[in-house]
Formats: sequence, structure tokens, C-alpha cells
Amino acid sequence: MTPPPAPWIRCVGLSAPSLKDNTADAERLLAALKKELTAEAVDIDLDLLKQLPLLLRKTGDRIRCTLFRDRRRWVLTGIDVPEAPRPAAGIAVDLGTTRVVLQLVDLASRRVIGEHAFDNPQIAIGPDVLSRIHHADSPGGLTELNDLIIDGLNAAVGEVCRRAGIEPHDVCVVSVAGNTSMTHLFLGLEPRWIIREPYIPVVNRPGVLRAADLGIRVSPFARVLVFPNIGSYFGGDLIAGILFSGLHRRRDPAILVDVGTNAEAVLGNQDWLIGCAGAAGPALEGGVSRIGMMAGPGVIDRVAIDPVGRRFDLHTIEELPPIGICGSGVIDLAAQLFLAGMIDVRGKLVSAACGDRLRVAEDLRHLVVVPAEQSATGQDLTLSQADLDSLIRSKAAMYTILETIAMTVGLELRELATFYVAGTFGCFINPRSAIAIGMLPDLPLERYVPIGNSSLQGAALALTSETAVDEIDRIRDRITYLELNVNSDFMNRFSAAKFLPHTDVGRFPSVKIP
Amino acid sequence: MTPPPAPWIRCVGLSAPSLKDNTADAERLLAALKKELTAEAVDIDLDLLKQLPLLLRKTGDRIRCTLFRDRRRWVLTGIDVPEAPRPAAGIAVDLGTTRVVLQLVDLASRRVIGEHAFDNPQIAIGPDVLSRIHHADSPGGLTELNDLIIDGLNAAVGEVCRRAGIEPHDVCVVSVAGNTSMTHLFLGLEPRWIIREPYIPVVNRPGVLRAADLGIRVSPFARVLVFPNIGSYFGGDLIAGILFSGLHRRRDPAILVDVGTNAEAVLGNQDWLIGCAGAAGPALEGGVSRIGMMAGPGVIDRVAIDPVGRRFDLHTIEELPPIGICGSGVIDLAAQLFLAGMIDVRGKLVSAACGDRLRVAEDLRHLVVVPAEQSATGQDLTLSQADLDSLIRSKAAMYTILETIAMTVGLELRELATFYVAGTFGCFINPRSAIAIGMLPDLPLERYVPIGNSSLQGAALALTSETAVDEIDRIRDRITYLELNVNSDFMNRFSAAKFLPHTDVGRFPSVKIP
Repeated sequence: MTPPPAPWIRCVGLSAPSLKDNTADAERLLAALKKELTAEAVDIDLDLLKQLPLLLRKTGDRIRCTLFRDRRRWVLTGIDVPEAPRPAAGIAVDLGTTRVVLQLVDLASRRVIGEHAFDNPQIAIGPDVLSRIHHADSPGGLTELNDLIIDGLNAAVGEVCRRAGIEPHDVCVVSVAGNTSMTHLFLGLEPRWIIREPYIPVVNRPGVLRAADLGIRVSPFARVLVFPNIGSYFGGDLIAGILFSGLHRRRDPAILVDVGTNAEAVLGNQDWLIGCAGAAGPALEGGVSRIGMMAGPGVIDRVAIDPVGRRFDLHTIEELPPIGICGSGVIDLAAQLFLAGMIDVRGKLVSAACGDRLRVAEDLRHLVVVPAEQSATGQDLTLSQADLDSLIRSKAAMYTILETIAMTVGLELRELATFYVAGTFGCFINPRSAIAIGMLPDLPLERYVPIGNSSLQGAALALTSETAVDEIDRIRDRITYLELNVNSDFMNRFSAAKFLPHTDVGRFPSVKIP
Repeated sequence: MTPPPAPWIRCVGLSAPSLKDNTADAERLLAALKKELTAEAVDIDLDLLKQLPLLLRKTGDRIRCTLFRDRRRWVLTGIDVPEAPRPAAGIAVDLGTTRVVLQLVDLASRRVIGEHAFDNPQIAIGPDVLSRIHHADSPGGLTELNDLIIDGLNAAVGEVCRRAGIEPHDVCVVSVAGNTSMTHLFLGLEPRWIIREPYIPVVNRPGVLRAADLGIRVSPFARVLVFPNIGSYFGGDLIAGILFSGLHRRRDPAILVDVGTNAEAVLGNQDWLIGCAGAAGPALEGGVSRIGMMAGPGVIDRVAIDPVGRRFDLHTIEELPPIGICGSGVIDLAAQLFLAGMIDVRGKLVSAACGDRLRVAEDLRHLVVVPAEQSATGQDLTLSQADLDSLIRSKAAMYTILETIAMTVGLELRELATFYVAGTFGCFINPRSAIAIGMLPDLPLERYVPIGNSSLQGAALALTSETAVDEIDRIRDRITYLELNVNSDFMNRFSAAKFLPHTDVGRFPSVKIP
């Protein structure tokens, strides 16, 4: 079954002009569109208006319109002949700090016709948000950062369109979901005060902008929907995630967690939403240890340790000789080390159990995960005690954030019927391992629902669903943001969570503590 | 007494940011503005938003905003320090086919601080609307016409600002009133169908546009209000005229007439408005006869003829030797010729009465108005029978338009308490002469109120009055346009009006018919 076209495509017939009714072309079109859309107002760019009279006389007053909606106003983004018109496409963008992913959607069929990803070119300036914001303070720094992402996006738009056999000019709507800092750099807005107390963004709701004003090379009449943020640490990527998860439409409360450098969580249902975000540290993404890296060929992504013989069974992506370990691999590894008695409840390496896998280098104890002769690098792949300490802090932060947000509304985590885990990284976490180290609560595994790149999917929804545009606003307005920095109990709970799986082991009945 | 600043200037204080309320800069400003303006929405251009965070931190969250209003939306057009800010100015433009007039207004004091006029540079392409629209059909023709007027305006804006000691950058709002064709050429819109049945403009309500999109070099955030039209032959210049006259706010009906190549009339009061326009021909502006010309030094503007001795008493502008005759002079001349018995009721030259002032050249009878020895050109200044015939047709058209519009609503012209005569030309007409030839109805002279360049004044009102923006829309929506081309009685009435003063002399009791 072919899905109906997106609500942004409409074919309209205009009233015929006559001596008795010499209403102008634009107003005849507006009248037809207002009737078709039950819209209050429809904006038409001057340069688009210039194309209207000739087209109307060519088509006998019937045209295909592409539109977009900005709250109560509609915007005309293109006009064409009604039969066999040019394609009309939309592009959803997940604007990540590290990786940027684009999805190309054909608006007539609502089908995804292309996807493309690239490393955020701002990495050349700094790997993380902080270093980039500091760079923006230097003369020309903000422009440089803005140019990098806009140029990168334009190249990616060109590439994804080329592969789908359409022109960038055929793209009439773009939706962009990113964290607050990435969104500011994308818009060329001063990010300076995002990271300085009291952490004030320049804008919460960038709204719907002209692509041309942003330097995005698509249709000159295209609009860009930029997802709103709640504050400096709760961005549009999460709003997009909520939109995609449907959390805001559920009757019973559920939680959505995005696991990354920042641990971000939203708890709620159709009546209320509460969100918070806290720095979890890069450990959960595998970014801290010397052998940690992004998922890729040869990277260890799954670990099993036989608790009796303590033999390591490592799985690498594409089953190539190991070169490092990714985030989900690190969580697996820590869980398995703990269950095998090789690290204790504090996450400290246990000498007796580690045996000859233990090394001391630079005054620090290391565990050899892969000996040099088996690694693709020709060197030992090791995890240091410092790496483990960092991981413990990160998992404790994650758990404490979840606990705090639930407590704030008087719920216990185990009462949650659904636990959405977002993010490409989240998809690969083995929930059993995350539970074993006390990073995620001890829920039946079926309650964990990985939803993948929910930012991208949420951004794509905004391209094809008319209600999404309103839902975004409603989500934004309904979220209560819980500021963890001013929450005094947080540090106490954090300390209690810095054990494996937790000081209160009764919370993790499923974990077989050695 | 200093008038209050225009409603477009507001100083606002923003709520202070804190850890408990980390609302973004833009949203704090929007909240303050919405409260100040009781506005539904305020648009902020992205590039203006870029300036906001630094300014707020410099001023301690107090800023001066310049704004403009587009129906229910407000648009922020500038931000500055609250004390000793840059000037904020507006420019009103009367976009005439022949002459373009600018008025520069200081928005803080609402004072006119400059005025400048220039010939419409499109005259180089063609003197009238028709020739320009035909030129627009040729390749590149429309762009050429558009460039001419935009370049001309930019030069004039630069000049009027320079003389007032401000920068074009300080101009944050522009209002433009012109006829439908001039407005289309100003916007770069295809004028082709304006002059072809069924006479359809591209747009009736251009609305509020970005100056930058039009190529107008003022503040990059400035907006341009373009007055709406009713149709191809009833333009924004007339809407501006109605606004200025206040016709639409009167309890008792009055009429507004703009006398020019087109004779345009609006009749109405606070409850209803009816408008019509018809080609009167250039005769009324003095543009038809070989000696006709625009008012200027040496041009005959007033004529008296002693009915007994038939001596001509001519007045020229600056009392220089005569070089030609302007529109008001032609009307005076025709009236005096008629009252002196030198032309008959059909407007034909009476040989016996004209005596030696009569010449025949090129098979056509001419009246010598100024003999060669008294003229500045060294040649006879003559008026031909053809010129007179043309004048009769024009005055008949004018009168018939007035009669038709009044009849349509069941009123008699003599019932009208006020008769506004608009246009610089209208100002100089001697109503007594216009009545004598039956061009204007025989009302007591005090009912004739010349209101000057009402287009310019109406455009200027839009810069300083908040209600004007709504009034323009209400005027536009309330006017019933009477299409004369489809009015079958019109030609009968026109024929009856082709006599001096009229077939029905009872309508002109004050005229002493010789």
C-alpha cells in the first residue's frame, strides 16, 4: 500500500479570473490554500511569487504546492505543474557532536530514499563541545565553526541527493535535531554563555528559518525546522527523541534514556514530562581508556568471561583481529570482570583473580584484555585501574540521574513498564551487562526497548507528519527540566551508586554477585 | 510639545537569568516584548539574534527595540543600547509613474527630517505605464525596469539620509505607495496581465517584506510595507490617499478624487467605501496639447479672459515669459474660453469670437494662446481643436466616473459634504474652472478640500501610527471596486457629459453660460 503523500504536498485548483472577479494571482492561490489547509495565513516568498503568474497560465490555474508549517502559519516552499512535477524531498539531520547523519525523504511517498553520515568537521577544532565553545571565543572562531558544519552539510546534501537521483534544489524542507551547543554553532549563534553559569542559551526555539539565510544549498524557498531546546544541557536531539519514542502520548509513565558523554533522561506520559541531563563522562562511550574507540571493524563489541577458568571470549566487529574496544564492549567487559570476581564491588582489580593478566605500568595497575601476540596492533590492549574508576563514576552518574528523576515524581524505577534506550550506542549495550554493573536498573529485560537513532527518526517524523510540528512545541512546553546542579541529594545518591552494582544490592536481585 | 515616539520604538527590560530560570536570551526578550506589545508573536531575524547576547550583557538586560507590525505579527527590526542609541528612521515613498517622492521620518520624535523627489528613472524606458509594461515583455526587460527604480530609490535614500545627517543603515522601516503597475515593477513582479483582459495583478497584498529581499539598501533588518491594491487600476497610492484623508473614519459620506491620467474616485464613510478608476487621458494633466507640460518656471498655470474685450490675462510660474501650459492652466483656459463664448457647448472654437487668435495649420484650427513675440520660445503657443476635443473627453470621463460612483450608491453628487481633491496637480486646479467646464460637480467651493500628495502622506502615516497598519487592511477589505468597463450605462452618461458644462445645464446653476 502506498502511503499518502506528506501533508506538505497539495494540488490546488484556483478560481478562474474574470472581469467580474479580478482577484490577483497570489490572492487566488492563498484563498485556495487556506481552504485546503484551513490555514490562518500562508507566507509566499517574493521570488516564488515571481514564478506564479506564468505557471498559472501554463497549467490553467491548477498547481502542485509544497508547503511547510510554522506553528499557525504555513509557508509555501515551491510550486510546480500538477502532473509529473519535480520530486519534492525533505532532509532530516541528526546533528551530533561527533557524527552527523542525514536522511532523505521523498515527500510524495513518505519513503526514505537515502541516508548519509559524516564525521562532524568541527572535530578538527576540538573533539568535544567545550573545546569548540572555547574556540568560538577566539576572533573568527564562531564563523569558522559555523562554516565547517554548513559546508559539511552542503556536501552531504549534495551527496545524498546525487545518489538518490534528485537535485538539492528539490529539497524543500530540512529538519535539524542537535544538542543545544551544536544547534547554536549550526545557526552561527554565540555559544559562550551556554557553558558559563547560569548557562543561558541565545535561543530556546529557533523555529522555522529560511534555508538560504543559513547558507544551506537546497531550494531557495526551503525552510529549516530547528528543534527547540529546554536549556543549555537539554537539546533538540532529545526533543526529537521524545517525539519519535511517543513517550508524550503514553498513558502509563515510561522513561527515555540517551546514553552518551551526557546522560540524558526523560520520564513521563501524556500528561507530564520531566527531563534532566548530567555529565556522565565519556567512559560509557568507551572514550576514556587508551584502547577505547568508536565501533568499527576489529573493535571489541562483546565480551564473555568464563567465571571458572576466567578465559576471555571476545567478539570483534567483522571478526577481525582486535584493535580496541567500544562502549558496549567496555560495559560487557566490566560486567564480566565483576561477575568473574576479577574486580571487586568498588571496581578495583583483584590481584589474585587477575593473575598474569595484571601488569603495572606508570605506577598504575593494568589488566591485559588482549595480549600483544593476539592484537592487531602488535601491542597489549589493556584497561587500567584509572579507566575502571572512570567507568564506575560514569555508571554511577547514569544510575543516579535515573534514580533522581524517578524520585522527583515519587516513582520507583522498577515501576516503569518501558525503558527506551536511545542512541546508536544505546542500541548495542547489552542490558544484562548494564544491569550487572548497576548502570541501568534491574528490570525484566523485555522492558528495555532500544530505539536507535531517535534524534534522526524524530527529525524525519517532522518531515512527514503534520501533527509532529505541533507535538514538538507541546513536548517543549510540557517538560519540567530538573537542574541536577542545584539538587543537594544528588551527590549522596551518586556516592551510593559508586559500587558494583550498588551499595544497596537488594535493588539488583538478578545480579549474581560473586 | 514633543510628540510621543512612534509605536515602533520600545525600551524593554528583560527578566534576569539565573540557575532557577535559564530561559534563553531570545525567549526572555520575546516575553518582555509580548508583554509590552500584547503581541501574539514577534519575529526576530537570525542575523539580528546574533547581536542579542552580547548587547544584553553590555546593557544589563535593558535594550531599545525598533519594531514593525505585519498584521498580527510584530517584527523586530533593530536592537540598541537604551541610552543615546543610533537614530531610528522611517522612509515613506510615493512611487509615482512620473515622479517619486521620499519623506524621511525620525521615529523617536515622529518628525519629518527630510524630503527628496526624483523623476522615475523608468521614464527612460517609456513615459507611461503601458510602454513600460510592454518593455517588460522583452528579454531582461522586467529586470531592467526593476533595477532602474531600485537603484533610483537607493540613490535617493542615500541622499535624503545624508542631508539629514543619518545613515541609510538607521532606516528600519519603509512604506511604499504606488499604483498597481509601479508596485509590480518595484517588486520585480510580472506586470503582463495587468493590462490584458481580465486585468489580473500578480498580487493584491504584497504586505510586509524584508528590505534586503527587495534590494533596498537600508538596515539589513528593515521591513518594507507595500500598500495593497484593489485591482489593476486601483492601486496602493489610492489606499494611502484614503488613509490620509480619513474618508474611512467619517460618519457622513465624502468623496476623494485623484485627478491624473487615470481619474480615480472613492466614495464612502466609516461603514462602506466604493471605488472606481477610469482612463481620463492625459489631457487633464496638460499632457496632450503640444504646449502642455509639467508645472515649472515659465509655465502658464492660471488664465483669465475678460469676457467683453476677450483680453487674455495669463499667469506663469515665477512670472517668467511663457513656455507652455500645465494641467491647471489648461482647465482655467478652457473654462475662460467657454465663459467668453470663444468655444461653444461642444468645445468647438467659435470663429467669430476668436477673431485673429484663430489659425489653421495642418488642416486643424488652432487658437493662439500666446503670440510668438510674447512667448519665451519665439513661437506661437497654440491650442488646437484636437487638444480641446481631447480635454472634453477627459473632463467628461472624470465627471461620468463621479456621477456613476454616486449613482451606484443612490446618492447625488450635490449631497456630498466634502470633496477631497488629491494629487499635486489636484491642488492647483481652480475648482471654479473645473465646475465651469463640468469636470467637477457644481458644489459650493468650500466643500472642495485639496489634500496634496495624499499618497505620500498616507505612506508617512504608516510609519508613525500603529493603527494605520490595520486601517490599511480594513480600507482594502471594505472597498467595493466598481468596474466601469462592464458598466453599460457608463457610455450613455459619458456622452451626456461631453458638453460644456453638461447636456443637463440644470446641474450647474452657478455657471453663467454665455
